[in-house]
Parts: sequence; C-alpha cells; structure tokens
Amino acid sequence: MMYAAIMGYGTIGSGVAEILEKSRERIACGAGHEIKLKYVLDLRDFPDSPVADRIVHDFKVIEEDEQVKMVVETMGGVDPAYPFVKACLNAGKHVITSNKALVAAHGTELLQIARDRHVNFFFEASVGGGIPIIRTLYRCLTGEKILEITGILNGTTNFILTKMDREGAAFDRVLREAQELGYAERNPEADVEGHDTCRKIAILTALATGKEVHYEDINTEGITRITDTDFRYAKMMGTSVKLLGISRIQGGKVYARVAPVMIDKEHPLYSVCGVYNGILVKSDMLGTSMYYGSGAGKLPTASAVVADMIEAAQNADANVSFGWKAEQQAIADRGEWESRYFVRIAGDAKDHAEQVKAAFGEVRTFVLEGADEYAFLTAKMSEERFQKAAIAFDGERQKNGEEGIRQIIHAELEED
Amino acid sequence: MMYAAIMGYGTIGSGVAEILEKSRERIACGAGHEIKLKYVLDLRDFPDSPVADRIVHDFKVIEEDEQVKMVVETMGGVDPAYPFVKACLNAGKHVITSNKALVAAHGTELLQIARDRHVNFFFEASVGGGIPIIRTLYRCLTGEKILEITGILNGTTNFILTKMDREGAAFDRVLREAQELGYAERNPEADVEGHDTCRKIAILTALATGKEVHYEDINTEGITRITDTDFRYAKMMGTSVKLLGISRIQGGKVYARVAPVMIDKEHPLYSVCGVYNGILVKSDMLGTSMYYGSGAGKLPTASAVVADMIEAAQNADANVSFGWKAEQQAIADRGEWESRYFVRIAGDAKDHAEQVKAAFGEVRTFVLEGADEYAFLTAKMSEERFQKAAIAFDGERQKNGEEGIRQIIHAELEED
Repeated sequence: MMYAAIMGYGTIGSGVAEILEKSRERIACGAGHEIKLKYVLDLRDFPDSPVADRIVHDFKVIEEDEQVKMVVETMGGVDPAYPFVKACLNAGKHVITSNKALVAAHGTELLQIARDRHVNFFFEASVGGGIPIIRTLYRCLTGEKILEITGILNGTTNFILTKMDREGAAFDRVLREAQELGYAERNPEADVEGHDTCRKIAILTALATGKEVHYEDINTEGITRITDTDFRYAKMMGTSVKLLGISRIQGGKVYARVAPVMIDKEHPLYSVCGVYNGILVKSDMLGTSMYYGSGAGKLPTASAVVADMIEAAQNADANVSFGWKAEQQAIADRGEWESRYFVRIAGDAKDHAEQVKAAFGEVRTFVLEGADEYAFLTAKMSEERFQKAAIAFDGERQKNGEEGIRQIIHAELEED
Repeated sequence: MMYAAIMGYGTIGSGVAEILEKSRERIACGAGHEIKLKYVLDLRDFPDSPVADRIVHDFKVIEEDEQVKMVVETMGGVDPAYPFVKACLNAGKHVITSNKALVAAHGTELLQIARDRHVNFFFEASVGGGIPIIRTLYRCLTGEKILEITGILNGTTNFILTKMDREGAAFDRVLREAQELGYAERNPEADVEGHDTCRKIAILTALATGKEVHYEDINTEGITRITDTDFRYAKMMGTSVKLLGISRIQGGKVYARVAPVMIDKEHPLYSVCGVYNGILVKSDMLGTSMYYGSGAGKLPTASAVVADMIEAAQNADANVSFGWKAEQQAIADRGEWESRYFVRIAGDAKDHAEQVKAAFGEVRTFVLEGADEYAFLTAKMSEERFQKAAIAFDGERQKNGEEGIRQIIHAELEED
C-alpha cells in the first residue's frame, strides 16, 4: 500500500482521483502496490464528491504526514504550487505534476532536489497532455542524439486553426466558438499568443539537451494575426498553417521558436487536427518518429499523471535519472533561424516581379482569384537575410506611397 | 562495464554494433554502465568489419562466458534462434531480440524463463521497427485498459500500397519496383500475404491482454488481390487502402485480423505512407494515441534493440514485469467481426439497385467513368451477415449467367 495526496481538485486533479478509483486493480498491478488516495488539498469543500472525506485545507497536513509518499500537484500556476512542491520533495515525497508553468520556471531546481532526496519529480502531463512524450524521451530514445523536436503542443490553438482551415472562417469568430465550447479560456492569451506552447517546447528542449532552458529566450509568436485569407492561399497551395513549437539542435547550437508555420500534406504533423497534439522527434539513429494523442482534457491528462504515479511507485526508493542539469542552454540568435517564407503583398504580382526577385531571390508566386493582392514563397534563407530584404522591399513600396507587406508566415515546405 | 554479445551479424546485428560504438557515451550515461561488445556470433567471418576480432562461430563460447550478461539475437527465424535464446536465458543472461517470428511462436515460454531467472527478455524491435510501441504499452499505458490496437506494421506492403495510391500503378509492377529498390524480398510472401503483420499484431494483442495469442488464430489476408481499379475508386471516395493489423478488445472478447482496409483522411493512419509504420492505440482513459516512425531499416531497428539493451542494463538484477502469461487468449469468430464493406460488381448500378438493397441494405454507390462496373459501400455489419448477403447476391447473378462480385474490401469509415 502506498499513500498519495492530490493538491488541487480541479479538472485534472479530480480526473486523477477518478482514475485511481476506476482503475485501482490495474494500477496496483503495474505499480506493484495499491495506491491509496489519503488527502485532497483544496481551498473549497466538495461535499458531494467521492473524495469529500479526504479534503483538507491545510498543506501542512500533507507535508507532515509521513505515510504520504507521493503528492500530485494539479493546482496550476507557480504560487503556491512552487513552495508546496519544493516542501514535498524536501520532505522525501515523490511529486508528480501536470503544471508546465511550474516545470518551465523551476524544473531545474526541483529535479535537483528530487535527485538529492532520492525521490522522483515527474511531469509527463505538463507537455502533450496524455501523449507519453517525456517518458519516450528518457525511456525509449535514451541512446539517441535528439536533432529536432517539433510539436503541435496546444489543443486550443490547433482547434482554432483547424476550424479556420476547414470552414474558411475568421480568427475572431472561431475563437468565440472555441470559448463557447469550453475549448478556449475567457482570457485566451496564454494559448493564442503562444505562451503555453513556448513553455512546453522549453521543457522538451531542456530534456533533449540535458540543460536548463529559459523559456523567455524562445522567440514566440501566436496565431492572432493569422487570417482567413492566409487559409485561402493555403488551400490553393495544398498546405495548412499550424502553431508549432520547434527546437533544433545543429552544430552545437540550439535554435528554438514558437510560430505559426505553413506545412504541407507530406509533413507528419499536417493531419494532427482539432484539439489533438502531435510531437515529431528527429534523432540520429531512429530518424523521424511521431507521437500523437489528446493534448488536453480531464482523463487523458490525468492518465499521464497516473502513469507517472505508477513509475514513482515502481521506483519508490530511487531517483530515476532524467531531466536536465543546472548548466544553462543558450538559444541561438533568431536571425540565424533558417526557413522559407510565405509573404502576401498588396498589388499586382507582375508589376512587382523584378523588385521581388531583387529583394528575395527566386520565389513561387500565387494569385488569389479576385483579390487585390498576391503571395509568394521564398527559398530557404536565414531570418536575418529575409528581414533585410523585407525592410528594403517595404521601403521601396512606401516611397511610392504603396501599401507594404501584408503578411509573413514561416513555411516548412520542401524546396520546389 | 557490462559485456554483451550479438548473435547474427546481418543488417540489424551490424547496426547494433555500429550504434554501440558511435553512441558509446550516451549509452553508458543512460545505462549506468558502459556496454562493451565482446562477441559476435555468425557462421561467416567479417575480416574487414570493425568486429572482425570479436567474431565467434560457436554458440557455446557465448553461453559459457559468465562475463557476458546480455545477448542480442538478430539472426531471425526460429531455428536456431529459439534454442540459443532459451539457453542464454537459462544461463542467466538478458536477451534482446528483433525477431518477431521467435516472439510470436515462443514468447510465452521465453518470458516465463526470464521471470524465473530474474533476467529480462525484451523485443521492442520485433514490432514497428524503431517505434517504441512495446515500451509505451508497458511503461506509459500501464494503468490503461487497452480497447484497440490498429497498426500499419509492415513497411514493404505500405510502400507498395502508397505507390499504387499515388501513381495509380498495378500491384505487380510496384512489387517489382520494390524488389529492385530492396524494399521487398525476392520471395515477398511473408510481407505481401500479411504473415509478418499477423505475427506483429499477435505480439501486440498478447501484450494488451496479458495472455498468450496464437498467431495462427488471426484471420490474415494480404494485399495481392488489391488492384489499381480499387485505388481509382479510393481516389474518388477520398480514401486509401492500407494493410492493417487490427485487434479489438470488446465485451470480454478479442477480435483480431489482418486485412487490407479502406480508410479516409480523418483516420490517424491515413497519412502513414511509404516504408513508415504507424500504430494507433485506443485505451479507456487516454483515448486515442498514435505512434509513428521507421518500421524497418538498419539503424532505426537497431536503435530499438539498443534501447532494450539500456533498459536491461538499468535492470541488470531484476525482471521488469510485462509481457503475457501462459493462459491462452481466444480470438473471437471472424463471423462476428463488424465492419463496412467496399464491394465492386460488374454491370450497371441502376439495373442492380433493388437486388443490392435487398441483399445488403442501404448502400452508397460509386460509378467509375467508363468502367463496366460500379462499387458500393455498405453500412456496418457483421462479417457473417455480409457473407450471407454476398453469397445470395452472387447466386442470383450466376443464375442469370452474369459475372459476380469482383472485389470486397473492409472499410473503416464513419457512417455517412
């Protein structure tokens, strides 16, 4: 028998309690012990819930109960999750969290405390919801040198972009729909501005490099400026636009960013639609692999928490070696990032042909029936080179009193 | 330091030796010990290879060397792989194999010996090449009740079907091309008749149920009767045809089969193309997840073997609990299998409309421009019911001296 506590009885916390009850035997079989829920910490009472008799309001009860060997943190946010988790680890308890903000901000320190105290700090549910990506990295790709991780890591934005793609609808309308359906928060900023994806790709990059990654170093763009017009071009081009967290480890440097990216049907992440998440990993021996599943939702995310609880129970007396050390991983300058670019410009493609070629080199041009604009796709180039070209080109346009570039989207497409 | 031996210096065996050398430090770091290759067993000599000094021809050298704690079996086939592996386990050595024929035929016994001797018998590379599907099942989905596993498990047939789909080419021509490219064997039967897929889905089913599965019990059809005409309809219908191994655990029964199946763009396996493999898992809490990667090839497969070696080193003194017990899992009668059916018939759809409806119920009809035939898609029904209808319908046709049904393909498509 192993006693556990849950801190935070929200969607995920209640899901964990539900699975612990429903799958009790299977979990006991996998863990080698029955895992028994002793406390649920929450400010609220839940008199009608199955855990009513286990609700406590005082963290000290959990911290000081030596019977509790395993604590699940599903409160979210950094405060008080951070001091609570730290105190649990210091008290020699395993901690499992679904909290990406906590892991991205304090993972290095919490992993070190876990190592020092011979317990485990697991956070599978913090990235990709139910997709077992973190365990795959440290259990399955252990001998691999990771070269790239690219992920659709946020279900809300993927739901929005999928709907924009399929229905040709505008961002604002689809966002409202997503909010009504409960797929987007009333304050959607963390999702649509890419902050959530940024924390997740920071965690994956830290695991891939074994070093600390400051998520603030990762250049992050959201999807708020993606329009239905972009998707009209995408349809014509056989592509779609996805919000990707990308991390590339090349020549001793780490390149990372979060941005909406145009990809085509050949890309393994193209068919990751709706609220699903998908994570593509390139590594030196295995090559390309991809992991797909529910990126959010009560039971899928809680399932990942429970998988961590089972692994903690299996390793009750030992720290499982993974995660990253304190050394900091620098993120390469964004100007060095290489990509193709999808660019939309007011006016007539034929009139600009020479100027476009002079500024951007050879491009592929696309014209939308009946639109007052056109688009082109550049060859692969560094962001620095592209930005210089764009500024020069826009300068020319403005001198002539013409409208400048309307849209720029990164494109991960094979060269024509 | 941990000493290992490889039995069989073919494609995968030499890949394992290569990775052990190239990734030595990373492997030592993951395994907790350096893994040193002491012997390579092969009938041949490899005087110019990097393992020339470690080649042995006598299995006894490995069996009797107590320093060798870990043996990799990459010979393929059952004889002498089976007696060699058994002897190694009995000698208290961990065994890692990539050999699906061995695991499908003798997995139950070998897993039991490993448990009895407190060593490990791992076989990640036997299914899905480099895709970490087996470890995912026992490490990540430990607390999940598996409801379905559906996989594209054979790269050769997927390469052939993908080419038929994209180029509209006939089976025979594409098979010859695949043989010339080295993607198909000169004797392609094990692949194109579905036997390889059958063994792999049997292994996955045994892992999902925890019981022994006799692969002979799994109804297996290959792809040799799939034609370019089928793909012309598929294109019209927005579908494709893939060779799937499917296992469903429903209401205490296990349904399993290998067959070419028509799926559409919404299916997560639709975009698994070429020599890639993909495995979709449905489980009670996590829902749908999917794992994608190189299903074959020297380094991807060898990478999965090395991941097993690392796990064996991490658990040098303990048997990792997974696999299946001796109790036999019955496979439900194929007549109970539920599916939609794609059916092609000579003649004119309008002339047959009433008879088709009488036999098969409501169907969706498809007519190929300029063809002397048509096709329809039935609603979901049991194979028993479908077969009865097909026999009755064919009987009618034959009585009138007309050609009967030309083609029947299972279809996993949402109801219209």
